[in-house]
Amino acid sequence: MLQIWLSLLSGLCLRLVFLCSAEEGLEFPNFDGKDRVLDINERNYKKALKRYDLLCLFYHEPLPANKGLQKRFQMTELVLELTAQVLEDKDIGFGMVDSQKDSKVAKKLGLEEVGSLYVFKDDRVIEFDGELSADTLVEFLLDVICHQCLSVSPVPSDFKAFQEASERFQPYIKFFATFDKSVAKHLSLKMNEVNFYEPFMEEPAILPGRPLSEMDIVEFVTQHRRATLRKLRAENMFETWEDDMDGIHIVAFAEEEDPDGYEFLEILKDVARDNTNNPELSIVWIDPDDFPLLTTYWEKTFKLDLFRPQIGVVNVTDADSVWLDMSNDEDLPTAEELEDWIEDVLSGRVNTEDDDEFADDQDNPDSYITEDSDESRDPDEEDDGDD
Amino acid sequence: MLQIWLSLLSGLCLRLVFLCSAEEGLEFPNFDGKDRVLDINERNYKKALKRYDLLCLFYHEPLPANKGLQKRFQMTELVLELTAQVLEDKDIGFGMVDSQKDSKVAKKLGLEEVGSLYVFKDDRVIEFDGELSADTLVEFLLDVICHQCLSVSPVPSDFKAFQEASERFQPYIKFFATFDKSVAKHLSLKMNEVNFYEPFMEEPAILPGRPLSEMDIVEFVTQHRRATLRKLRAENMFETWEDDMDGIHIVAFAEEEDPDGYEFLEILKDVARDNTNNPELSIVWIDPDDFPLLTTYWEKTFKLDLFRPQIGVVNVTDADSVWLDMSNDEDLPTAEELEDWIEDVLSGRVNTEDDDEFADDQDNPDSYITEDSDESRDPDEEDDGDD
Repeated sequence: MLQIWLSLLSGLCLRLVFLCSAEEGLEFPNFDGKDRVLDINERNYKKALKRYDLLCLFYHEPLPANKGLQKRFQMTELVLELTAQVLEDKDIGFGMVDSQKDSKVAKKLGLEEVGSLYVFKDDRVIEFDGELSADTLVEFLLDVICHQCLSVSPVPSDFKAFQEASERFQPYIKFFATFDKSVAKHLSLKMNEVNFYEPFMEEPAILPGRPLSEMDIVEFVTQHRRATLRKLRAENMFETWEDDMDGIHIVAFAEEEDPDGYEFLEILKDVARDNTNNPELSIVWIDPDDFPLLTTYWEKTFKLDLFRPQIGVVNVTDADSVWLDMSNDEDLPTAEELEDWIEDVLSGRVNTEDDDEFADDQDNPDSYITEDSDESRDPDEEDDGDD
Repeated sequence: MLQIWLSLLSGLCLRLVFLCSAEEGLEFPNFDGKDRVLDINERNYKKALKRYDLLCLFYHEPLPANKGLQKRFQMTELVLELTAQVLEDKDIGFGMVDSQKDSKVAKKLGLEEVGSLYVFKDDRVIEFDGELSADTLVEFLLDVICHQCLSVSPVPSDFKAFQEASERFQPYIKFFATFDKSVAKHLSLKMNEVNFYEPFMEEPAILPGRPLSEMDIVEFVTQHRRATLRKLRAENMFETWEDDMDGIHIVAFAEEEDPDGYEFLEILKDVARDNTNNPELSIVWIDPDDFPLLTTYWEKTFKLDLFRPQIGVVNVTDADSVWLDMSNDEDLPTAEELEDWIEDVLSGRVNTEDDDEFADDQDNPDSYITEDSDESRDPDEEDDGDD
């Protein structure tokens, strides 16, 4: 069980080590020993909901008898304590809800997934489905409360629907409003118009109909929420991963700070822009720099070199995968070549199962993008001709 | 002392919590219980140096008697253990050197700063002066070994000087070489020419002289290393902060993902490009998103709202600071206005000490950038007229 609690330390920081420096300005917070995380129960949960602008509840299994698991539990508490301390001035309450002892409260509050963290804000509940580290949690909560700062006054009535719709999606989707003519002009935004910018798209989609009701906006955003190219982020990585396309993800690894990675990302963006209206297509872009602890795991699981850009199909039920051969150091695929490959993925011609069959016969059964030879493309393969 | 060890948990992760999911592909590593970190002493240090491509040594104070500090010590070990496990296949050794028990070894190895981590690679020593979390450390070490992957064969002799110079600066400064004519043409790079790209600059500086010796390159890079605009990064944040300009830093806070932050950053880049030849100027850009746990600390210490872009002068000995007034929501300063302010900072007209004198008399004694009034600029102030 020691195995388990150590895994919790993956992002642990030893910043104090360096604090002997004479220079000021980079002091990481020290826990001051004050208990801020509440033990939520039937007697105090209503008061807690009332008292804070935001209430953050961790729904957990009962304290285990096993010592190793107890340590893990203490660490969860400590992450919450430190987060509570860091955000002390922001009027956020923190609490723990025991799935056994406090099962009635949990039911009343609608807590379902043990091990999840729920944020209560006004009459909304936001489930946090990201990496549960103090870093990520603080950033997430700052995003949630930042939204509150955006309230503008006086608020025109047309704006109310927009504001209320925004509540449903924050902090994952950001909503901005401008009352400034020159800004609106710069964005080619007409009065009372709502534009939806999908990630990495240059042109926004304009929401149809006017005046727009809260439900119009909610429906449109819900429908267009899954972007053609979406970046995996610590704050909602598990949610993104669970939102697969019939059991698979098209995954692209590209380090934005690496020249090849940058170039490949530009190609991906081109492909995404060309295919933004294809609801079947959503590419998950992972920047390995954002997930150092997962890099070697991915390299082993997917048998990849992540020092280079990669794109492939991952079966999310067994992590089986097949990757486009880009081992030729000279050139990355063009947007057209990438679109052909994606077409093959979407049509099922490239899939993780074929790979299993042929794995022993050929080295790279699914690769056909090589620079100097056309034969490597399967001659029997039909061209759809619709590009 | 409990305060201390908890502070170590700031980046602690509870990723396991979410691993009950049926989907595969995002599994954070679990420590397997195997000891990989060596207790370095006189008998084994030479063998360790020989055995690994990279040897990573943590130079620490003796195990303290105090229980709280012992826990902190154990956590340091655990960070190293997890890092060692994650990087198991990369031929990196990890060890601990006790500053008291192993003082002789420390002297032989040239370890000086207790609490620092030293990376031995061939005949070089790289001091890690960043955030000591497993995340940051893994990323740093992957960067160090990635460099080894770049070896090209056959290597022309002119390239050797370049390659050897690169060893002195990696992984903090990245060196790339191309043997491809079309890539060289695209970069306007001539044969055997070395171009130096300062961060955020569009045009490179061309290293003078040819053929370039290792020392030519080292000298040039050393001289131009401190960029006009440099981003604070977890991997060398303490090193950057210690590299102040006569006791001060010009610090800009801007969230790249926020529209105002993005715009402000573009203005900063313009200013940096205009002033790239001014050795007196170096602006430290901090993206608050990269340091969630420091955000509220900075807000309190500097009395700032970090939901908005900010620029100011920080005295690094006492963290005293003075900030440009950009409270006017309408507009960010123009590049010209920012340059005027920077000129005032460099000439000492704007400084953290004046602020102390006038703090009780005026609200914003140092601000003169407001949109609608010119009077806010001190009429007695001289214009240097050298822009």
